[in-house]
Amino acid sequence: MVFLNGEFIEKNQAHISVMDRGFLFGDGVYEVIPVYNNKIFRLNAHLLRLQASLNSIKIKNPYNPQKWSDILNKLLSFCNNQEQSIYLQISRGVSSKRKHSFNDLAPTVYIESNPLQSKTKQALKAGFSAITQPDIRWHRCDIKSTSLLANIMYSQQAKEKNVEEVILYRGNQVTEGATSNVFIIKNGTLFTHPISTHILPGITRDLVLESARKCHIPIKKTSFSINELNTADELWISSSTREIMPITQVDGKLINRGNIGNAWSCVYDYYQNLKNA
Amino acid sequence: MVFLNGEFIEKNQAHISVMDRGFLFGDGVYEVIPVYNNKIFRLNAHLLRLQASLNSIKIKNPYNPQKWSDILNKLLSFCNNQEQSIYLQISRGVSSKRKHSFNDLAPTVYIESNPLQSKTKQALKAGFSAITQPDIRWHRCDIKSTSLLANIMYSQQAKEKNVEEVILYRGNQVTEGATSNVFIIKNGTLFTHPISTHILPGITRDLVLESARKCHIPIKKTSFSINELNTADELWISSSTREIMPITQVDGKLINRGNIGNAWSCVYDYYQNLKNA
Repeated sequence: MVFLNGEFIEKNQAHISVMDRGFLFGDGVYEVIPVYNNKIFRLNAHLLRLQASLNSIKIKNPYNPQKWSDILNKLLSFCNNQEQSIYLQISRGVSSKRKHSFNDLAPTVYIESNPLQSKTKQALKAGFSAITQPDIRWHRCDIKSTSLLANIMYSQQAKEKNVEEVILYRGNQVTEGATSNVFIIKNGTLFTHPISTHILPGITRDLVLESARKCHIPIKKTSFSINELNTADELWISSSTREIMPITQVDGKLINRGNIGNAWSCVYDYYQNLKNA
Repeated sequence: MVFLNGEFIEKNQAHISVMDRGFLFGDGVYEVIPVYNNKIFRLNAHLLRLQASLNSIKIKNPYNPQKWSDILNKLLSFCNNQEQSIYLQISRGVSSKRKHSFNDLAPTVYIESNPLQSKTKQALKAGFSAITQPDIRWHRCDIKSTSLLANIMYSQQAKEKNVEEVILYRGNQVTEGATSNVFIIKNGTLFTHPISTHILPGITRDLVLESARKCHIPIKKTSFSINELNTADELWISSSTREIMPITQVDGKLINRGNIGNAWSCVYDYYQNLKNA
């Protein structure tokens, strides 16, 4: 079952008009929200970010937080798996005339939820590979928008190169991954790009920082260069569905001689505590 | 009537799956093609650009040029108006799993056509206003993609400021308009940004250059600065539906003391000849 504009229906019965501005213009925003032990994880943080995205592109939020919670929990009641990944999209809605500018429309709300299978710590310890690419995306990456073609192109590259992620840089400063935030450990300190219009303010990014504090790891919200990434002691990516993944190889070169680091291990454990709290 | 995946149906009956990657990711490309005197204008050029866009994002063109021509002409047979604007969109198609990377899918093809009312020369002579803004778009503006949120935001600004267009600059070099190409005349020479990944290779841009040659106006495909734009003798924007519009006011300041130029008048006339050839 999926949710579409107030109704719970079968996914293959869920259709939208060709006049939907989500279809014609990528004129929408979205969230991906994990569910652990049947409980929606950090719902408030996701709803706050959703509101920020909506504000940025001037779409009125169709529901208040309580209504969102009710809808999502009703949707989850149709799901068997205790770990889920909720996908929630709001587009500007249907307009009979294709026009770049817009009027007040009734937004289209689409939500689906799918089983989420978190990787075990043992599986994560194998380490993952990434490649780097210049960041060609627009300058409002803080908006979690459905105009995702650049991200699509990067993810396809990752698939073709058989790596987990494409790590992006502007000038020579690392911004984030195509679908994740990026962190390095250097001489015991955690570095990650500061919040700006060049990165998504990841909910999991916040949880990584919260966990790092618990591990007494000093944090610098400062951008770092590709060279600093290549010579990092540890390199991680984070996202709501991938949690915190250690990257041990970038562009074919090993990070920390291919070894998983102690900082990651501690942060991973605290993150699991947060999930199960 | 509209065309959707092989069928001619009523627009309000035309629906796509919520799993369409055009809806979920802005994962598609499009063309806008004018029709004059019941004849599709520069169809081959539009089909070539469509092919280039499809190649860039690795979608297989579902039809050959003859089939495209047949479909578009069939669609036009349902239209009464002799001047039309055809909108043609191809998205990557429907995938049951929401995933940034993609597999081979059957593309979704959607086409609609609407009456086009070209402005008269008399009406254009009144001149139009524009504002300038930093170009925050991605670095593949040569792809005519449906991931258009940046363009939407600019067009909404134009509407709110009651101007015709937002003219964009990277660094201090003018790239193009949010939905048009940009030209200036300076000391008798026509300047426009060269073809690159920072502008759309406009079909109307080519026709403007063709017309300028007929008017014996020297052409420099060289970018120009915001300052050069402000002090230009003439300033025009071009697009398939707006043709060639003279801009006489930018950010509240008059261009050429608010007067329409002779170069525009000559180029406009040749362009009309091309339309009616």
